[in-house]
Amino acid sequence: MTTIRIGVIGTGVMGTDHVETISKSIARAEVRAVADIDVGRAEAVAARIPGAKALSSAEALIESAEIDAVIIASSNPTHGPYTLASIAAGKPVLCEKPLAETAAECEQILRAEETAGTRLVQIGFMRRYDPGYVELRARVASGEIGAPLLAHCVHRNVSVPPLWTSEDIVLTSAVHEIDVMPWVFGREVVNVNWFSPMPNAPGVRRDPQVAILELEGGALIFIELFMAANYGYEIRCEIVGEKGTIELAPVARTVSRSDLRVQVDLAADWRPRFAEAYRRELQSWVNAILAWNSGDLNNVSGPVHGPDAWDGYRAAVIAEALVASMSSGGPVRVESLAIPGLYQQGRS
Amino acid sequence: MTTIRIGVIGTGVMGTDHVETISKSIARAEVRAVADIDVGRAEAVAARIPGAKALSSAEALIESAEIDAVIIASSNPTHGPYTLASIAAGKPVLCEKPLAETAAECEQILRAEETAGTRLVQIGFMRRYDPGYVELRARVASGEIGAPLLAHCVHRNVSVPPLWTSEDIVLTSAVHEIDVMPWVFGREVVNVNWFSPMPNAPGVRRDPQVAILELEGGALIFIELFMAANYGYEIRCEIVGEKGTIELAPVARTVSRSDLRVQVDLAADWRPRFAEAYRRELQSWVNAILAWNSGDLNNVSGPVHGPDAWDGYRAAVIAEALVASMSSGGPVRVESLAIPGLYQQGRS
Amino acid sequence: MTTIRIGVIGTGVMGTDHVETISKSIARAEVRAVADIDVGRAEAVAARIPGAKALSSAEALIESAEIDAVIIASSNPTHGPYTLASIAAGKPVLCEKPLAETAAECEQILRAEETAGTRLVQIGFMRRYDPGYVELRARVASGEIGAPLLAHCVHRNVSVPPLWTSEDIVLTSAVHEIDVMPWVFGREVVNVNWFSPMPNAPGVRRDPQVAILELEGGALIFIELFMAANYGYEIRCEIVGEKGTIELAPVARTVSRSDLRVQVDLAADWRPRFAEAYRRELQSWVNAILAWNSGDLNNVSGPVHGPDAWDGYRAAVIAEALVASMSSGGPVRVESLAIPGLYQQGRS
Amino acid sequence: MTTIRIGVIGTGVMGTDHVETISKSIARAEVRAVADIDVGRAEAVAARIPGAKALSSAEALIESAEIDAVIIASSNPTHGPYTLASIAAGKPVLCEKPLAETAAECEQILRAEETAGTRLVQIGFMRRYDPGYVELRARVASGEIGAPLLAHCVHRNVSVPPLWTSEDIVLTSAVHEIDVMPWVFGREVVNVNWFSPMPNAPGVRRDPQVAILELEGGALIFIELFMAANYGYEIRCEIVGEKGTIELAPVARTVSRSDLRVQVDLAADWRPRFAEAYRRELQSWVNAILAWNSGDLNNVSGPVHGPDAWDGYRAAVIAEALVASMSSGGPVRVESLAIPGLYQQGRS
Repeated sequence: MTTIRIGVIGTGVMGTDHVETISKSIARAEVRAVADIDVGRAEAVAARIPGAKALSSAEALIESAEIDAVIIASSNPTHGPYTLASIAAGKPVLCEKPLAETAAECEQILRAEETAGTRLVQIGFMRRYDPGYVELRARVASGEIGAPLLAHCVHRNVSVPPLWTSEDIVLTSAVHEIDVMPWVFGREVVNVNWFSPMPNAPGVRRDPQVAILELEGGALIFIELFMAANYGYEIRCEIVGEKGTIELAPVARTVSRSDLRVQVDLAADWRPRFAEAYRRELQSWVNAILAWNSGDLNNVSGPVHGPDAWDGYRAAVIAEALVASMSSGGPVRVESLAIPGLYQQGRS
Repeated sequence: MTTIRIGVIGTGVMGTDHVETISKSIARAEVRAVADIDVGRAEAVAARIPGAKALSSAEALIESAEIDAVIIASSNPTHGPYTLASIAAGKPVLCEKPLAETAAECEQILRAEETAGTRLVQIGFMRRYDPGYVELRARVASGEIGAPLLAHCVHRNVSVPPLWTSEDIVLTSAVHEIDVMPWVFGREVVNVNWFSPMPNAPGVRRDPQVAILELEGGALIFIELFMAANYGYEIRCEIVGEKGTIELAPVARTVSRSDLRVQVDLAADWRPRFAEAYRRELQSWVNAILAWNSGDLNNVSGPVHGPDAWDGYRAAVIAEALVASMSSGGPVRVESLAIPGLYQQGRS
Repeated sequence: MTTIRIGVIGTGVMGTDHVETISKSIARAEVRAVADIDVGRAEAVAARIPGAKALSSAEALIESAEIDAVIIASSNPTHGPYTLASIAAGKPVLCEKPLAETAAECEQILRAEETAGTRLVQIGFMRRYDPGYVELRARVASGEIGAPLLAHCVHRNVSVPPLWTSEDIVLTSAVHEIDVMPWVFGREVVNVNWFSPMPNAPGVRRDPQVAILELEGGALIFIELFMAANYGYEIRCEIVGEKGTIELAPVARTVSRSDLRVQVDLAADWRPRFAEAYRRELQSWVNAILAWNSGDLNNVSGPVHGPDAWDGYRAAVIAEALVASMSSGGPVRVESLAIPGLYQQGRS
Repeated sequence: MTTIRIGVIGTGVMGTDHVETISKSIARAEVRAVADIDVGRAEAVAARIPGAKALSSAEALIESAEIDAVIIASSNPTHGPYTLASIAAGKPVLCEKPLAETAAECEQILRAEETAGTRLVQIGFMRRYDPGYVELRARVASGEIGAPLLAHCVHRNVSVPPLWTSEDIVLTSAVHEIDVMPWVFGREVVNVNWFSPMPNAPGVRRDPQVAILELEGGALIFIELFMAANYGYEIRCEIVGEKGTIELAPVARTVSRSDLRVQVDLAADWRPRFAEAYRRELQSWVNAILAWNSGDLNNVSGPVHGPDAWDGYRAAVIAEALVASMSSGGPVRVESLAIPGLYQQGRS
């Protein structure tokens, strides 16, 4: 098999983007099926992709003999069940974050993979494929700034659905920083803390929020989460080390001057900022499956070279600790399982 | 009198800079005397300034009939006593920060001024004269970003004397942000909190430190203090509001390219960064004295239009609360006197 | 046919990059053959690509029944002959710039395509696929800066082979700006002019050089070409219009601070700067071939949606006018053929 | 005498700014008289400055025994006559650019100074006092970029009076670059050339224009002059050397984010950009007069340490050559007098 036949569950914004990206820009992969609870929407997406069909159910897609690998981009409550179904079907699966709605549900996925004896699940933490974060991590690892001591992160959106609670924001947006910062530092999170100024958004939601993650050894990560920041979508990250600092450069293709100002445009959502990360994530995932299928195990216990179920579980545990800190108003220790043997291999 | 005759106590780095600035760049003022416990150093400075002489004691300088106004730039323990002596002599005085070594000692200065019935003391919080901070404050006040919710401040030095403790850093360096941020927000500090990652500097000092100030109404100020940052001197400040953000622009006069990089040079200490602020501080102080002397009271209770003894006292109270948080490991409420009537006039 | 089988002639830096890019990142395409006058080099490249073989001659590659489309990345003198051979074989061909060594030789290619009745040739002006230039052009076309009046371009390399002459630099490096700027402005070049300060490089070569292109209607393009700029590879372009300006943003993924400076790294050559442009160029070329093969003509007279033989010819004519200006020391009028009907279709 | 008593001729924008700056920010100087053909305007300005009076004529001001030094900020045609009158009165004079309306008239001023045997005239080329240009020049002189080969200058205004001709723009705006660039390079201009795209402004005026200055040794200066650029006031300058480049950094005190953009504000005219340069120019001029009066000749033939009448004459000669190039459409050689002995002393 030289081409991976992919089925995509969920044809909302993210699922449709993945279908488009695979069709236009991913080598050795093709979308062969899409499924959505809104069948008409699935059919409309499938109609644009030669060789793809709309299926009546996610389960049918997962079990289809014509599908080699599964992408889950449906609503958050379905992530856990569809991931478990994919593991049961023995198929590689790329699940959008969060892996499941609770850490406890993530544990079930860990156990299912352990039973299967193979890492099949990749979690959609695409920032690990963003060229900026990749360079940031490599430079930190190079030692050029000495030991990394602090990080300042900013994560701002134009707006979010009005019904999103403070907890939702931590569980579904903050998880990006919760995953990527330990990966950049090469250190686990051991404690968390939570702050918020007076509410910005109407209603009871606290927005902005500031999460503080303490890593093994003491380094501190400050994360500003501001979902109704209004002015634009923006991600920033600066790592402060003993001898210097490294930060993500601003992302822009052009600079303009008009009306008494020099200006760089900002995007209205995350997709332009991370389009290249998504492309690289998908290509890397496909390449890992091809390598696994060809028997090139490369010392890794499954067709996953990227963030796996363990990373999804860890992010859920840390996010839940933050939610606990939100309630208690003080620091909360991160308590998690010991890492199972299956997930130790190849982990830096 | 159309020229203010100034006496400068202390001819270290800061005092000598003030003498130079007044002589070269300040209208309607002249340095007539300098004093230092190192008499030879005072004589060397005086020799460069036509019309200036070195005096044998700070007290003699303060009481000299040839001196209209006093600048205190001597060691920190002398600030309180010399300020009190200047008040006793009825002379306007510009005292470098800190106003005194403890909040309690600052209270004595407040009481002395109240007794005198005139605000004579300006505290050397020069950032209030920095064109960047002035513009930042004006833009926040304009309402263009809506209510300000958060601030991110960075305060980094190349190095500090090895014997400086964490407490010294808060009491003598952090006071700049402690003073200027409430001034930018137009809100008082009500609570503080303190964090620090693993130590960077050798010995028991914690460095970097992160101070969190909570303002009335809930806005949060995050201040990274990093004294042995090694790479350069740098000050940053971003204000995050409901509708947008405003931050200090980088300070540089040229950009260069060489050796596979585009580069902006950083200074090794704070003086180039705030040279213009010091010049404006001194000119403003001289102008206020001239206006007071000419009977143009402008509704202000003394020859001080800038930060006064009350501001020096408030900064000391907040800094001491941070030191308490450093010990307790949790939030500390800022407890201070009610503002006396003398200091209410003209305060925004 | 759902996958384009590509043969690559020339396995130097550029050819090898194309082979890698196609194998790792291009959908619906595969490299099936490589050819090089250095057979060992071709074999080494082919060995890394499953399904690819090294062929003994470029001609054999062009004529192979197993090759659908040809990439020419061999030495400049071979571009014309191999392009003509590909047209004779009826195969789509992507030829690295320059299209041929002289405008006269480019004319032969135009005639060959006219005879064939199909546009088969794309010229490797990858800047048209660079996201920065694409955005620059779209914004100019949007009218937001009014009529574009001027452009300032900078094209700097670390070094070039010592034997390159001033003419070589114009004919092989300046052609990028010569092609892309009329495309951005939507106007043809009618006059050229040439300047150079005192020589930088040793020997008789003039470096830097400044080319001035005058477009129809009068707009002026200033292009600094500096091949031995030493400090790094850098491309800049600012368009100045009646109401404002637009320029390419700096390209960087991280910013660092150390040793008293803030720094952005520069690349040592053009490949990192244009890696994404090459990927998009190749994917677009493959997509156009697939669309042509599937009968979706889209009103275009051949499997080429990008810069074609006419663009390669025009660049050669303008570059030769610049070389004439170099000799004459004054302005030179650009004289070219009228555009043949084959090339008019779909040209904006 | 320890304070210089200054008379200011002309109370338009520039003259009023100088009066304000001297009064508020210049040590050891005071404005004692202002004159204007609009007497009411002069009286209004004088009324704001304690100790200053409005005089009925410029000549009376120049000859007044209460005036030590003269600033000429009246209309361009009066510059030459008032400068000559000041020389005749033996008084130091700071004349706004241009020194006179023609190079020939500037020659008369040179001869008057030679007859007086003293350099009394400073010309208001304030960019030589701008901290950015000062740093640019020092870094070029340091050799860090090797020999400087090229410069790219941009000089843009929001608008100019509709009746200004292309010649006016060269003679009164371009003179800033014409003066400062040879000063930065340490080389004289030997040839000039002139280009312009299609007109932007209505009427016959060509705008933007591009002036090319060739320096001794061959270095080339490209100057874009765009008077009706609409979008804002902006000055840029990049020096390209054998080993690297140095450019003026953008000037801004704050950066803001709102409405899907990151933005730096631009000024509507030149005054904020060069306010600090004007202050330093005035203080330096006052200091030079004080030093001259005190007999500290410092090897300079008069109370002028800045750009002098010779610099004003050279700028006029080069500007006139540019106007000749505008007519002839080709390069024009700069022909000037040999530098008289009076002006050689202290010239770098």
